[in-house]
Amino acid sequence: MFSVTVRDHMMIAHSLRGAVFGPAQQLHGATYVVDATFRRESLDADGIVVDIGRAAGALRAVMAELGHRNLDDEPELAGTNTTTEALARVVADRLAERALSGELGDGARELDGLEVTLHESHVAWASYERPL
Amino acid sequence: MFSVTVRDHMMIAHSLRGAVFGPAQQLHGATYVVDATFRRESLDADGIVVDIGRAAGALRAVMAELGHRNLDDEPELAGTNTTTEALARVVADRLAERALSGELGDGARELDGLEVTLHESHVAWASYERPL
Amino acid sequence: MFSVTVRDHMMIAHSLRGAVFGPAQQLHGATYVVDATFRRESLDADGIVVDIGRAAGALRAVMAELGHRNLDDEPELAGTNTTTEALARVVADRLAERALSGELGDGARELDGLEVTLHESHVAWASYERPL
Amino acid sequence: MFSVTVRDHMMIAHSLRGAVFGPAQQLHGATYVVDATFRRESLDADGIVVDIGRAAGALRAVMAELGHRNLDDEPELAGTNTTTEALARVVADRLAERALSGELGDGARELDGLEVTLHESHVAWASYERPL
Amino acid sequence: MFSVTVRDHMMIAHSLRGAVFGPAQQLHGATYVVDATFRRESLDADGIVVDIGRAAGALRAVMAELGHRNLDDEPELAGTNTTTEALARVVADRLAERALSGELGDGARELDGLEVTLHESHVAWASYERPL
Amino acid sequence: MFSVTVRDHMMIAHSLRGAVFGPAQQLHGATYVVDATFRRESLDADGIVVDIGRAAGALRAVMAELGHRNLDDEPELAGTNTTTEALARVVADRLAERALSGELGDGARELDGLEVTLHESHVAWASYERPL
Repeated sequence: MFSVTVRDHMMIAHSLRGAVFGPAQQLHGATYVVDATFRRESLDADGIVVDIGRAAGALRAVMAELGHRNLDDEPELAGTNTTTEALARVVADRLAERALSGELGDGARELDGLEVTLHESHVAWASYERPL
Repeated sequence: MFSVTVRDHMMIAHSLRGAVFGPAQQLHGATYVVDATFRRESLDADGIVVDIGRAAGALRAVMAELGHRNLDDEPELAGTNTTTEALARVVADRLAERALSGELGDGARELDGLEVTLHESHVAWASYERPL
Repeated sequence: MFSVTVRDHMMIAHSLRGAVFGPAQQLHGATYVVDATFRRESLDADGIVVDIGRAAGALRAVMAELGHRNLDDEPELAGTNTTTEALARVVADRLAERALSGELGDGARELDGLEVTLHESHVAWASYERPL
Repeated sequence: MFSVTVRDHMMIAHSLRGAVFGPAQQLHGATYVVDATFRRESLDADGIVVDIGRAAGALRAVMAELGHRNLDDEPELAGTNTTTEALARVVADRLAERALSGELGDGARELDGLEVTLHESHVAWASYERPL
Repeated sequence: MFSVTVRDHMMIAHSLRGAVFGPAQQLHGATYVVDATFRRESLDADGIVVDIGRAAGALRAVMAELGHRNLDDEPELAGTNTTTEALARVVADRLAERALSGELGDGARELDGLEVTLHESHVAWASYERPL
Repeated sequence: MFSVTVRDHMMIAHSLRGAVFGPAQQLHGATYVVDATFRRESLDADGIVVDIGRAAGALRAVMAELGHRNLDDEPELAGTNTTTEALARVVADRLAERALSGELGDGARELDGLEVTLHESHVAWASYERPL
């Protein structure tokens, strides 16, 4: 199995709902350093999993949709408790949509899977992995 | 599949038994930077894999049980060659026990798996992965 | 010259004032991974620059004063544009106060200087350096 | 499942064939920071996955075979578009050969799998994973 | 003293002249992860050392001038042995020119100094520091 | 001012003397990831601060003198409380001796200074800087 990973980041405000979150129930924020991993059983005719430039571009586009915002006010995230693990899924699902739409090149429609990791600090991170 | 990882560290002395270890048969030591990854197929009602605060607390407790010691003198490790990979299992098994005991919250009893990585330097690390 | 550095982090919401900041004028947030460096010409009688445990404790206390908050609402920061470089100074000045008060041990009153670096992402950080 | 990873690096020149590569079709180069992960279901009699010294030695040997060269001129790579993912496979296959030959010790013949990751920068990397 | 640092990278081919370089006399290559640090005694009216967006843009522009090339063929580098330390100076001097030209904003003309670090691997890097 | 840094590591056992060290008074250990920085006002005729291969070799030699040992038993360190900052000085002084002896090449005798940083974990490190 082959994979390619690109890294970008976004800076957001949000608050979390639930006693388990303690002080993180207050409005605060995070830089998420985001790693998006694209998996494929075999390489395409160019010898790649996915065009790394397009993969980086798609990730940057998703970062721009979410970044520099207060996620508590985003209509598309209403009803989502924006924990690091839940946001990893949001990013992965948006990247999957872009891959399936052909935005990452025709070959990207043959990707086998996708994993997204959000680093919230130097001591904590969360991931979501899905097939494509 | 979702996962959450927390990082901590411990500083220990030990020696290794076996000609394969060369100079590491002498009493020396290590800082292990330890990553504990908790895996779960779906998120709980709060939208998390595990309470990150409790997960970090459990890891810190395991680090305190082992850290600032000469592992050659620990009765619980008698008979264990304390290689990085063997210690990764010790840490993982102790975290699994804590998770199953309810110490990480009721939801943590539904975790699917656990992986522990011990970084012994910037150029070498070892992991142990197990179901829960 | 000797130095000792300890690392911690804080997660905050804020917005920046000024056209130069573009989308960062909107309410957003950041994880700041914070490195606090303590400098001293010579070591004390224990062979240290500063007690690393106390230094880490003082940094954690400053992180707790600022973290998990919307900095736009903090009375003590009213009038401060909370850029990464300005926050580096806030953290450094608060650590200097704690050092001078004796909270880091008597020896810490003899520190020669202090530098604080705030990493806002994997590709950008800012520092403030001052004498003590 | 246990694993052990060792890290090394190589510095090479090359060019890539295919319009998808844009400016990377020109002769340029890369430092690849290479992580080689060895996997094994259970530990051997010494309590290890593989002798970490021998594993590091084998990786260094493969780095020496490829490094400080223009890969466009390497007869063994003729016909290979030397993308990061394709090179990850080259390194993994060469390590597998060395493991199977006994060069990493008798126990290394019982390894279950191998993964090689090539980091081409701080924001992009690629991996290849195979059984042994 | 305040500073702001931005990180980017470039991938180049080159060879080095001189017996001291051993195998690096052959055509090979490198990824340089480049940190550009801008220093200033006091913050400007916006509370910044330099507009981080413009600083990142200027660094990206310099990376584009040098990256994806064989430096042995660059007329502007003829006569320069393109060691990591020499390239750190090239990047710093080009950034200084851009700062002095006003490209980083009017305030950037008041910068006190500049430091550029080129990481050639995870185990080696070089820097050049100059006043502005 | 130019500088070149090389990184290596050593793994040692030791204990610290003094109530301030708490549990670190017990025999324990550490991996020190060590960065040695060589500084020079101008480059030599080859365009370098120091031969990076020789610098790395000298650092490796110092690591071998100290590593895989219990520092409490080292005659040369008797009377030294082997704190991270004190060990940074030991390493720097030994590298300075090697540089002055000509072991790093003739040019290395013209180095202006030396800084050594010992990382004891991902959250703490110490440095010692000296002229040459």
